[in-house]
Amino acid sequence: MRVIELHRSVTESNDRDAARLRAELKEKGVLLINLMSAPGAGKTTLLIRIITDLRGKLSIAVLEADIEASVDAERIEALGARSVQVHTDGMCHMDAGMTRTGLEALDLDGIDLAFLENIGNLICPAEYDTGAGLNLMISGVPEGDDKPLKYPLMYKESQALVLSKLDTLPYFDFDVEKFRERVLFLNPGIRIFPVSARTGEGMEALEQWLSEETAKWQEREEHA
Amino acid sequence: MRVIELHRSVTESNDRDAARLRAELKEKGVLLINLMSAPGAGKTTLLIRIITDLRGKLSIAVLEADIEASVDAERIEALGARSVQVHTDGMCHMDAGMTRTGLEALDLDGIDLAFLENIGNLICPAEYDTGAGLNLMISGVPEGDDKPLKYPLMYKESQALVLSKLDTLPYFDFDVEKFRERVLFLNPGIRIFPVSARTGEGMEALEQWLSEETAKWQEREEHA
Repeated sequence: MRVIELHRSVTESNDRDAARLRAELKEKGVLLINLMSAPGAGKTTLLIRIITDLRGKLSIAVLEADIEASVDAERIEALGARSVQVHTDGMCHMDAGMTRTGLEALDLDGIDLAFLENIGNLICPAEYDTGAGLNLMISGVPEGDDKPLKYPLMYKESQALVLSKLDTLPYFDFDVEKFRERVLFLNPGIRIFPVSARTGEGMEALEQWLSEETAKWQEREEHA
Repeated sequence: MRVIELHRSVTESNDRDAARLRAELKEKGVLLINLMSAPGAGKTTLLIRIITDLRGKLSIAVLEADIEASVDAERIEALGARSVQVHTDGMCHMDAGMTRTGLEALDLDGIDLAFLENIGNLICPAEYDTGAGLNLMISGVPEGDDKPLKYPLMYKESQALVLSKLDTLPYFDFDVEKFRERVLFLNPGIRIFPVSARTGEGMEALEQWLSEETAKWQEREEHA
């Protein structure tokens, strides 16, 4: 089999903008989590479950990024959560400047935890630092256990991973142990949360982690 | 809810290259099909089924495009089919120049039908004409019936759509009629093939369409 390597040149001035945005968010005490996954992995469904479960404990806002639709922001707003929709005009990623523009419209006063629901895509979003404090990715059981082999960058760039749609395991050839090994090979420090947003399985551990990370983020800000 | 439109400038010289490649493929009598989908929709599994079922009827080759992995090309080669792997160095699409480079390595002599298995991504691949004669996309049941609302361009740019993993319908909230309406609203002329590569359901109609399209492509070339 022949393998051909195609190349491109990348020039980025995004990293500085991202670092500045992250510092500002730290000062404000708002933990921004960049939520990434393939299309249909269940980002919005997971967010709805988290917002509902953590109501009264954490004040949560959502920045929805989509190519052109607004259906996700409508679902989040129906919960009474603060939400802004960003349309990316065909672009398959969010960078720090785009994230800043969205957050300014979102109004973060009194918010503890903000999610950037990134474009449904396993490639481009991983290449850009958005300025978020943490990267959280979702991998769905129906996508198959080989995804870490094919889209390694996102697995490397994420601090935590949700393995979603766990209730569908009986219907797919998905080897959880093999998947876990592949992920940890790429990123030994990553936290893995197997979850079903439908049945609620695994949600408590994920939500506890979110609460702890938010507290840590806000604490560090006070001691700064 | 506020909606923010982000903009970009696009400059493309790809269309001319794509038209030239398509004309050359027509002259050679090779129908190139650009196969696009989200990650994990089942592109390789579908191709394996098609190659196996059409063995002896059509001579099929596959150009595999991935960011960096080669696992798909290995699966195709195990069938004895001609296959070349292209690595895109992080790029989330294939353009006509990249496709030409891959096809030159593939050797199309005696080939009737070639598939470009594009990067697993619902956004970028739809934006570039690869020079293929037809665009075929896959949408998987587990991805949800709202995907046409969120990634409309690929549905508009495809001549045919495979609704894959049909055997998992009982386990997901997927409304086939609603999905079909959303697709046809975007693209009234598109052919839709509901399929399960696992059980074989729907494969015959898809393979008959592939055979007919290949014959049409080769016929038109003779009359040119």
